[in-house]
Amino acid sequence: MTFPIDIVAIDRASDVPAYRQLYEKLRAAILDGRLRGGVRIPSSRVLAMDLQISRNTVISTYDTLLSEGFLESRRGSGTFVADLPRSAERARRQAGGSKLPSLSARGRLMADQPQFGANHGQITFHPGYPDLRHFPFPVWSRLMTANVRRANQELIGYSMIDGHPELKQAIVEYLAVSRGVQCEPAQIIVVSGTQAALDLTARLLLDPGDHFWIEEPGYQGAYGAFLGAGGRPVPIPIRSDGWAFPSGPAPRLVFVTPSCQWPLTGVMQMDDRLRLLQLASEHDCWIIEDDYDSEYRFRGHAIPAMRGVDGSGRVIYIGTFAKTMFPALRIGFMVVPRALAADFTRAVNMTGQYPSLLLQLTLADFIRTGAFAAHLRRMRSLYAKRKRYFADECRRMLAPWIDLPRSEAGLQMIATLKFECDDQQLLDAALRRSVRFIPLSTLYRHTPPRQGMILGYAASDEAQIRHGLRQLRAVLQDFA
Amino acid sequence: MTFPIDIVAIDRASDVPAYRQLYEKLRAAILDGRLRGGVRIPSSRVLAMDLQISRNTVISTYDTLLSEGFLESRRGSGTFVADLPRSAERARRQAGGSKLPSLSARGRLMADQPQFGANHGQITFHPGYPDLRHFPFPVWSRLMTANVRRANQELIGYSMIDGHPELKQAIVEYLAVSRGVQCEPAQIIVVSGTQAALDLTARLLLDPGDHFWIEEPGYQGAYGAFLGAGGRPVPIPIRSDGWAFPSGPAPRLVFVTPSCQWPLTGVMQMDDRLRLLQLASEHDCWIIEDDYDSEYRFRGHAIPAMRGVDGSGRVIYIGTFAKTMFPALRIGFMVVPRALAADFTRAVNMTGQYPSLLLQLTLADFIRTGAFAAHLRRMRSLYAKRKRYFADECRRMLAPWIDLPRSEAGLQMIATLKFECDDQQLLDAALRRSVRFIPLSTLYRHTPPRQGMILGYAASDEAQIRHGLRQLRAVLQDFA
Repeated sequence: MTFPIDIVAIDRASDVPAYRQLYEKLRAAILDGRLRGGVRIPSSRVLAMDLQISRNTVISTYDTLLSEGFLESRRGSGTFVADLPRSAERARRQAGGSKLPSLSARGRLMADQPQFGANHGQITFHPGYPDLRHFPFPVWSRLMTANVRRANQELIGYSMIDGHPELKQAIVEYLAVSRGVQCEPAQIIVVSGTQAALDLTARLLLDPGDHFWIEEPGYQGAYGAFLGAGGRPVPIPIRSDGWAFPSGPAPRLVFVTPSCQWPLTGVMQMDDRLRLLQLASEHDCWIIEDDYDSEYRFRGHAIPAMRGVDGSGRVIYIGTFAKTMFPALRIGFMVVPRALAADFTRAVNMTGQYPSLLLQLTLADFIRTGAFAAHLRRMRSLYAKRKRYFADECRRMLAPWIDLPRSEAGLQMIATLKFECDDQQLLDAALRRSVRFIPLSTLYRHTPPRQGMILGYAASDEAQIRHGLRQLRAVLQDFA
Repeated sequence: MTFPIDIVAIDRASDVPAYRQLYEKLRAAILDGRLRGGVRIPSSRVLAMDLQISRNTVISTYDTLLSEGFLESRRGSGTFVADLPRSAERARRQAGGSKLPSLSARGRLMADQPQFGANHGQITFHPGYPDLRHFPFPVWSRLMTANVRRANQELIGYSMIDGHPELKQAIVEYLAVSRGVQCEPAQIIVVSGTQAALDLTARLLLDPGDHFWIEEPGYQGAYGAFLGAGGRPVPIPIRSDGWAFPSGPAPRLVFVTPSCQWPLTGVMQMDDRLRLLQLASEHDCWIIEDDYDSEYRFRGHAIPAMRGVDGSGRVIYIGTFAKTMFPALRIGFMVVPRALAADFTRAVNMTGQYPSLLLQLTLADFIRTGAFAAHLRRMRSLYAKRKRYFADECRRMLAPWIDLPRSEAGLQMIATLKFECDDQQLLDAALRRSVRFIPLSTLYRHTPPRQGMILGYAASDEAQIRHGLRQLRAVLQDFA
């Protein structure tokens, strides 16, 4: 078989460069068998002349095909098409119709957890969003630009897997002053947010089949992480008088939000805190404290973290900058017992769950320069005002249909329904009016759910609150 | 018992604000039993007068202690210390000496994987580092600043878990042009780098006890991720004539670096690629293609990815910007089969392994404006020159002790040793002279290791290369 030159005809009108056309035509012809193994291909000089292209183009294309093993060169006798396995070629072409292997059982479990974080678009009243219009982006931008400029090997290498030392130091100081938590930088593990911390904690502390205790109603992200790790849930009902810790089965870990219960916003009282520490000691288990909204408390001072009361080292503290800075920063952290710090760091090294050092260093600067504390002060006072406005308007406009219990903390409020209604259907109707909330019933998994709306008020200004509430009123009028 | 006022004496010389002193003294006295349950505390007016502090300070402190349940107020008769469980208090104080619960078996396995990424300080010849002095930080900084300014809800919310649509689109276009991979944005999953992609892949595709095939010598990060997920390794020896695929046991997934084998830098020839696709079809398993260094090829054009040859959908492609941009960017991505995209996205939602949207959007701009392609062109030419210089100097200066096989790709070269020597001891000696490399033997796990040095040349300029090689020469002289 001689070389069929028309196989590699170059289209001069095409945008695709000549080397690319030549490469792809030769490759396709070899792969589909039009050029069989053993066929001698023309010398670069000859082919370049025949095709009227530069000889360098041909040489470079032959080089690539030689590197890939489509061609082989025999010393002294030229370049030939390589012998490729034909049956393998059929396997290659097995098209999209063929069945793919399944996920692992573990993967199936992980992928089957409900997706809760992917809300695009309209977020009026969706809880968990701070108001970004008040974030000091010029300050942030200036600090980041300075860090980008000073970028050095340390900042942009692979080191500092457990977090940048300057950020860890800044967090230690912040925790001591604001959260009553005493720890050393070595105990801080910086990760890409609360969810990464929960996932890591679940994997490191739970084996498939182990029980975990979790608040009911409780945080869907924690539930997903522990369930996805193969854990078996035991509910801790949240009652008006506190956390109703179950009598069994014995857990490997207990997940709580003591400073501002999610979603009900209550504070775990000291007697419950002490009781929980005692139970953890009896069961020899861990306590995971998610301290997500503790900075937003509107009466008295912030409630210190449970981690600060614990003397046993069983409390693993999870903090986030999603609410105090902005969610897409994707930086959170854990405070782990000294004895576990090395294990957690090696695990993070393996999971790659660490945020960009550039952002870490900028955040450290933001904290150290006082910009963080100043921002928090401003937001606390803004949100306090906004919360009063939201609560007043909500009670005024929606009184026939809802109750809005008082609460002293958190960026969300709970509206319970005065009439029989499926809160998920209510959400569907609200979404059609561009209002979003979390249906309270979806955070109950073991006990009869209460129907209601978890309403975030923080991201909306007064005009947006009024507009959103008018939409909700229209929805409720239709339903009741 | 009347209230012992000296318990809360305020130290006016202290830096600690009065409310904080009062809060902490009251709290400590209640916790340690000096103030027993039922003791009536003075009214805020009285205490403020006695302590000579503002009444608001006392009110706010009482409020916080009431919220926490340290105090309770009885209507009409005042405020009292709450009754806290005493046995619990003992559990709380169980000090650091007490034993903590163990990690889960899975956690133990994860934490026991060797830590490979935490190198601080000196990195001369440590492979895997680009030269950051040539990165266009002013351009990057300008793009990022523009994005910080345009920050909006979408950019800083919780959405876009699988990646920012603009970055996904930019990656699709880059892959089509540069890597011969055709895919849709929905198939791209953006994660925090290669290690996060490997960890996620391991969890989603491997169950404990499943076999995985992995190159020998091969990438330590992939090995750790699959082993940490409970997989059982089967080596694919890399020989001078290619990948020696094993005959069994059947794997759930196969990990390969076909465009530039890590660490040996060879290219998987087309016959091996087709054979691997056929084997994957026979075993009904996945192929994980880590395309880490494919952009740095110094002869012919870049070798297209294996993913581009596969028609079956079994190849999961992993790409990274660590080498083409900078490692601490911490952005990588996967191309997954269409059928798996939703599962992978839900899993990422649960694991929180996603990078900051601000960085994603800036990277998208960097690619779209052409800055990425221009930077790559400059670096390819710089590294080609640097590699020649390194190879020439290395052969000239270290000839008595090492062989330096030719290679056409990658940011590292392998020096094998001409004399009997433990390459890990060699590294220890090199580190004392501030030179670092990866000992080749550490990447063999199943077959007799070759001793040698994996030397990264890319991050050092010519003067640094000369200096580093002089240090290495001194080390080798001592050893041989």
